[in-house]
Amino acid sequence: MNIEQSERSQDLQQRLQAFMDEHVLPAEAVHAEQLRAAGDPHHHAPVMEELKAEARRRGLWNLFHPHADIHPSVPGLSNVEYAPLAEIMGRSFLAPEATNCNAPDTGNMEVLTLFGTPEQQERWLHPLLEGEIRSAFAMTEPDVASSDATNISTRIERDGDAYVINGRKWWTTNALHPNLRCFILMGKTDPDADRHRQQSMILVPLDTPGVTVLRNLPVFGFDHTEGHGEVLFENVRVPATNLIAGEGEGFAIAQARLGPGRIHHAMRTIGLAERALELLCVRAQRRTPFGKPIAARANVQDWIADARIEIEMIRLLTMKAAWLMDTVGNKRARTEIAAIKVAAPRVAQEIVDRAMQVHGAGGFTEDFPLAHMYAHARTMRMVDGPDEVHRMQIARDELRRHPVPDAA
Amino acid sequence: MNIEQSERSQDLQQRLQAFMDEHVLPAEAVHAEQLRAAGDPHHHAPVMEELKAEARRRGLWNLFHPHADIHPSVPGLSNVEYAPLAEIMGRSFLAPEATNCNAPDTGNMEVLTLFGTPEQQERWLHPLLEGEIRSAFAMTEPDVASSDATNISTRIERDGDAYVINGRKWWTTNALHPNLRCFILMGKTDPDADRHRQQSMILVPLDTPGVTVLRNLPVFGFDHTEGHGEVLFENVRVPATNLIAGEGEGFAIAQARLGPGRIHHAMRTIGLAERALELLCVRAQRRTPFGKPIAARANVQDWIADARIEIEMIRLLTMKAAWLMDTVGNKRARTEIAAIKVAAPRVAQEIVDRAMQVHGAGGFTEDFPLAHMYAHARTMRMVDGPDEVHRMQIARDELRRHPVPDAA
Amino acid sequence: MNIEQSERSQDLQQRLQAFMDEHVLPAEAVHAEQLRAAGDPHHHAPVMEELKAEARRRGLWNLFHPHADIHPSVPGLSNVEYAPLAEIMGRSFLAPEATNCNAPDTGNMEVLTLFGTPEQQERWLHPLLEGEIRSAFAMTEPDVASSDATNISTRIERDGDAYVINGRKWWTTNALHPNLRCFILMGKTDPDADRHRQQSMILVPLDTPGVTVLRNLPVFGFDHTEGHGEVLFENVRVPATNLIAGEGEGFAIAQARLGPGRIHHAMRTIGLAERALELLCVRAQRRTPFGKPIAARANVQDWIADARIEIEMIRLLTMKAAWLMDTVGNKRARTEIAAIKVAAPRVAQEIVDRAMQVHGAGGFTEDFPLAHMYAHARTMRMVDGPDEVHRMQIARDELRRHPVPDAA
Amino acid sequence: MNIEQSERSQDLQQRLQAFMDEHVLPAEAVHAEQLRAAGDPHHHAPVMEELKAEARRRGLWNLFHPHADIHPSVPGLSNVEYAPLAEIMGRSFLAPEATNCNAPDTGNMEVLTLFGTPEQQERWLHPLLEGEIRSAFAMTEPDVASSDATNISTRIERDGDAYVINGRKWWTTNALHPNLRCFILMGKTDPDADRHRQQSMILVPLDTPGVTVLRNLPVFGFDHTEGHGEVLFENVRVPATNLIAGEGEGFAIAQARLGPGRIHHAMRTIGLAERALELLCVRAQRRTPFGKPIAARANVQDWIADARIEIEMIRLLTMKAAWLMDTVGNKRARTEIAAIKVAAPRVAQEIVDRAMQVHGAGGFTEDFPLAHMYAHARTMRMVDGPDEVHRMQIARDELRRHPVPDAA
Repeated sequence: MNIEQSERSQDLQQRLQAFMDEHVLPAEAVHAEQLRAAGDPHHHAPVMEELKAEARRRGLWNLFHPHADIHPSVPGLSNVEYAPLAEIMGRSFLAPEATNCNAPDTGNMEVLTLFGTPEQQERWLHPLLEGEIRSAFAMTEPDVASSDATNISTRIERDGDAYVINGRKWWTTNALHPNLRCFILMGKTDPDADRHRQQSMILVPLDTPGVTVLRNLPVFGFDHTEGHGEVLFENVRVPATNLIAGEGEGFAIAQARLGPGRIHHAMRTIGLAERALELLCVRAQRRTPFGKPIAARANVQDWIADARIEIEMIRLLTMKAAWLMDTVGNKRARTEIAAIKVAAPRVAQEIVDRAMQVHGAGGFTEDFPLAHMYAHARTMRMVDGPDEVHRMQIARDELRRHPVPDAA
Repeated sequence: MNIEQSERSQDLQQRLQAFMDEHVLPAEAVHAEQLRAAGDPHHHAPVMEELKAEARRRGLWNLFHPHADIHPSVPGLSNVEYAPLAEIMGRSFLAPEATNCNAPDTGNMEVLTLFGTPEQQERWLHPLLEGEIRSAFAMTEPDVASSDATNISTRIERDGDAYVINGRKWWTTNALHPNLRCFILMGKTDPDADRHRQQSMILVPLDTPGVTVLRNLPVFGFDHTEGHGEVLFENVRVPATNLIAGEGEGFAIAQARLGPGRIHHAMRTIGLAERALELLCVRAQRRTPFGKPIAARANVQDWIADARIEIEMIRLLTMKAAWLMDTVGNKRARTEIAAIKVAAPRVAQEIVDRAMQVHGAGGFTEDFPLAHMYAHARTMRMVDGPDEVHRMQIARDELRRHPVPDAA
Repeated sequence: MNIEQSERSQDLQQRLQAFMDEHVLPAEAVHAEQLRAAGDPHHHAPVMEELKAEARRRGLWNLFHPHADIHPSVPGLSNVEYAPLAEIMGRSFLAPEATNCNAPDTGNMEVLTLFGTPEQQERWLHPLLEGEIRSAFAMTEPDVASSDATNISTRIERDGDAYVINGRKWWTTNALHPNLRCFILMGKTDPDADRHRQQSMILVPLDTPGVTVLRNLPVFGFDHTEGHGEVLFENVRVPATNLIAGEGEGFAIAQARLGPGRIHHAMRTIGLAERALELLCVRAQRRTPFGKPIAARANVQDWIADARIEIEMIRLLTMKAAWLMDTVGNKRARTEIAAIKVAAPRVAQEIVDRAMQVHGAGGFTEDFPLAHMYAHARTMRMVDGPDEVHRMQIARDELRRHPVPDAA
Repeated sequence: MNIEQSERSQDLQQRLQAFMDEHVLPAEAVHAEQLRAAGDPHHHAPVMEELKAEARRRGLWNLFHPHADIHPSVPGLSNVEYAPLAEIMGRSFLAPEATNCNAPDTGNMEVLTLFGTPEQQERWLHPLLEGEIRSAFAMTEPDVASSDATNISTRIERDGDAYVINGRKWWTTNALHPNLRCFILMGKTDPDADRHRQQSMILVPLDTPGVTVLRNLPVFGFDHTEGHGEVLFENVRVPATNLIAGEGEGFAIAQARLGPGRIHHAMRTIGLAERALELLCVRAQRRTPFGKPIAARANVQDWIADARIEIEMIRLLTMKAAWLMDTVGNKRARTEIAAIKVAAPRVAQEIVDRAMQVHGAGGFTEDFPLAHMYAHARTMRMVDGPDEVHRMQIARDELRRHPVPDAA
């Protein structure tokens, strides 16, 4: 395993860090204030467009995208090169969109790059790469456990040269974003096909009749700016050319999409954990009940040490997964991807919890980013499948390594 | 230890349970809808007054208050008798106010009962016992660790026949309640007195000039209806007769107040944990990814078993603390009170976390009470002092039981 | 729930505590020395007989036995009365045998009391009650998971007026005890009967031809004095009158036997945990690396506090189970018995682990009882069934409390 | 970070693995039998000399030693190259001595290589490199917390051209080894010097008058073959030329010695954890209580998955520490060395505990290596300093990264 960073990557890290320190972190308060002033949690704060312009100007744009030839702004980094950058972005919830590296647009852009027709790329991929529009990924459904993709009930039915879509989706991120223009929707074209050939993906413009964003789903009381929508698709009719790749390809596309998505989440989660630890350390030195700083107390020191140990470990595991993806492919990295999917949020959640404890009740409020970070880390244990599904897969792979031919 | 329930208590439990099933739980959705319709999280929903009237009618009113002679509505229960009732209330965040058993009014009513002058009782205690007004307890301050009460910086200065108050408080629960009429405020009358004689408590009517409720403090993104206020007191002038008990009595009153307060929190937290476990069990039987109910999986069964084991244990520990308070007094129950203060929220938080995991991403939203319950359980690890302060006290008491005279 | 201790019980507690302080704890070193001198870990140290005589003299004999009419030495205590006594005994591994309250003799005496014929009682029960002989309980078998009793493969076959036994047992406690005289053996009389009617129990004198104690099973390297034997039964022929209760009654007897056995283990485990905490507290005050006692460090204080909290909780849960057994019977106490079976060893193991950490490497040696205590607490998570089986049972009981009629 | 393995290292890994499979693992039972037959746990089993000869013949000798020029048998591997080899050795407690890579001889050989005079190297280092003799490291003392090296009380006093040593040491590994020939002893030459200049190290031949090995210290009931001795040094007189490096150099030598020692322990601990997981997986597939293999149960699958995740993480952290030691030196790797010192035993202990649970009570006995492995992993949390000391150091380093100039 070789995860030495290239000069290009090191240079990007420095520049991204500078951008974070000079622009993104100071913008957090401005962003909060602009939302408050607008009286709308889904308001597209002007400061975000300023950040985007600055990131673009600095060449910190589309860093996630592995294919340099798709767009002049794309440096075409490997996963090993992108990982430290995603970690840096993870320190602020503004950074991913500011650099056009935010989910689910990243995954959608990858899908359109790999599977889109030239027309689909022209109409949707290019504006996405420019950051002009936003997209959503309509996969998860209420009332069914989405850890089992065959549960999907949304129908995509052929009707002449169109497809007609009926179903209800939720946790459709970006659904409340003012710049949202389209969905990539997963549904069933053929419920009678083989288990993994029933699903297809299709592009659905937001303004198609029958599309209704019913509500935003709050997360622990937070209304995220981009929004997680519950979206109704009623007799939504789109041209057959909107289908991606072909009927029955949905499951395969989803698999291709999830690997990078999961590791990007893990990378950012490490940045989140680092920021929580930093907040913890600073606060623990500032607070002095009973006459000495909390940081001098051995239990808090244990928390700090364990946080450092565990962050080191999840970063290395993430890097290993990234390196495997770069060298042997996403498929053969699947145990490591599952492992980091489970490990990173668990570590981050615990560190944020302890940082809150050191902050006193203030840590639960908007005065610090901790409660928001907690909610994010916690949801990461569910996003892209609950921990338990990933642990089951890891266990099965492990058991296969120790065959017991004569077992009862 | 004898925690047999009296007939009166058993009867009250049955009646309270019926009230919960018939009125309170069904009112939760109504309450949420009334807040939404009002567009104000601090709106006093009409359904709450209906619940209060019904509770009063059913004789389920002021159950918390130990002194039957203070008001005809007060049954005068022991802590052992009240505990199962408080647990039942803990299943719904509406129940405490509906039965006039909500913090911090309960603590304030106890303070006024024990230490109030007849005039103070007439003006504030009786309307509180009637549920006509609400009160707040202004103790915690931003910027200082309130686990160390001597840190309090708010000043209460004598000026003729008045006191003048200057300071800033936060986490002042009820501060956003439309029925709020007064604060009991803790501040320093004599910064030069002995460490535990510097503080006093004083009644401050809400409408006194100089009192400003600056903002509500959200908890994990939730704006609680009653509100946790940041409140500014600038040159607030109140009659000297508003002082409670006497100058320098603040610390002693606070100690008297905290014991019951902590155990009431613990009791309700058990109810919360029970409800989370019930939600977990129901959901785990309903969800069937990969063809069998989640409840059939051994890891989820372990979660359920551990939840049951731990709920049993925190309930018994709460009952022991209650029984000690009833029989030997709050002071000699302090280890047990501290123990349950630490144990109950920890158990509840874990159970809610697992219930959320079983609910999938929906568990983080308003569709289930779980995220709200999580936030509540988590804050309980901070309210009335962080766990670490209570563990320190328990450890010191324990070490004293094992003296080592010749230790280096 | 009323667990007030009777005067008799309080008196016995004081007398037992005095016996522990004056005789048992000082005898630990003597016992170790006598074993060392004999060069045999299974040597019956003379000090044990001295302790037994003293206990008998003091009326601290057969305290476990619920039926006073069986023997003049039996006070006939309830479970609630016996629990604190068993806890006191649990502080020293010598105490149970010294007071004739050691497993598995206790369980065997209960079985013979309830199900034995007058002849069986005369020959085996009375000498056991006198402490003249020891017995073993041959149930667990190698190679099969004994959590599932139907797995038992040992055969008990009728042949004329005798039964012939063939099988291999292990974990047969007391197998290496010089005073061992008989086994109560569980085996199958009818493999074709209903699942719970296949097994029977039978008395097997040690000196019957075909009985071979193959070896002692060490526990974490410790050879326990009484021994846990692997025992071979080859064509062992005993009179048909040795059968207990009747063919097919084995499972029912085992159930009757296990309830009290599990709770006795739990009670003693609490005493073990208390002693570990005491050792921890004393050592933490004596050790002063870096110039201050370890006991002053906040992480060690957290350990102490958590230990106190958890010991309180497992004691209360044990008492509840005892009280239920006394008032509604073992069967209706089964959730609580399972709960304490899981909770007590877990708590004790953790406390001993932390006590070892405070003792430094010395804690792993024979200089302190901690390593021995650790091994004991750890094995308690397996004895009478692994935790996982009990958690499964608790979960199923819990799920039944929340029926979901329309679940998929 | 680049931890690609060289061809040489990969070749050695294959050869070492073959040696393990063909010789070491099969020798475990032979070794146990030879000890049993000898009736002496410290017997030097002949099979060990056979293993040593075979390892030497295969070129698997002194792999730990970084300096190829010291002896023809030394390949001179980097830490990154040695790490996977040490992990492989960690699978069997016989492998380290069989390959002449066992502590504390490894550390002693490093000390003599770096600091020994030609005469000291001739007399002690060469026989050690040949595996002809064994050495011990006499550092830890009873009655003082050895986490604080300044606590050492053993005196080394100059008297003419000799030094006279008085003191008591314990946990002196190899003290019961029949091949033991000398100690490297740490003691104080000048108690009045600066804190870190008081100590010196000196060579003490075993046969020097005044040296008494008092006893072996068992670990959880296990008497390790090589032995952990309590050793008395009474007026032990050795030539002044036996001093290593110079008076006052003891602390500096100890620091140089501990870095590699800790990481070697961590590497081997990973091998131990891997073996425990393998045993767990095999057993879980073989055991079928209630009709299906334990491995099919979701809780056991969670254990397996968590074990795999955590082993991956501790291996990567170990490799990072090794790589830092190779590239920037032991001193700048100290946080990572401390981190892996804490993390590896914790993970291994947990995995072994779960493997035992899957093995049933048999897992506690000599029938499986698990109890022995548990004892080893547990002691690793104390060897070279308790976890808490290392966590304190990590926390302090972390806090220094976040200076708070104006903190109260």
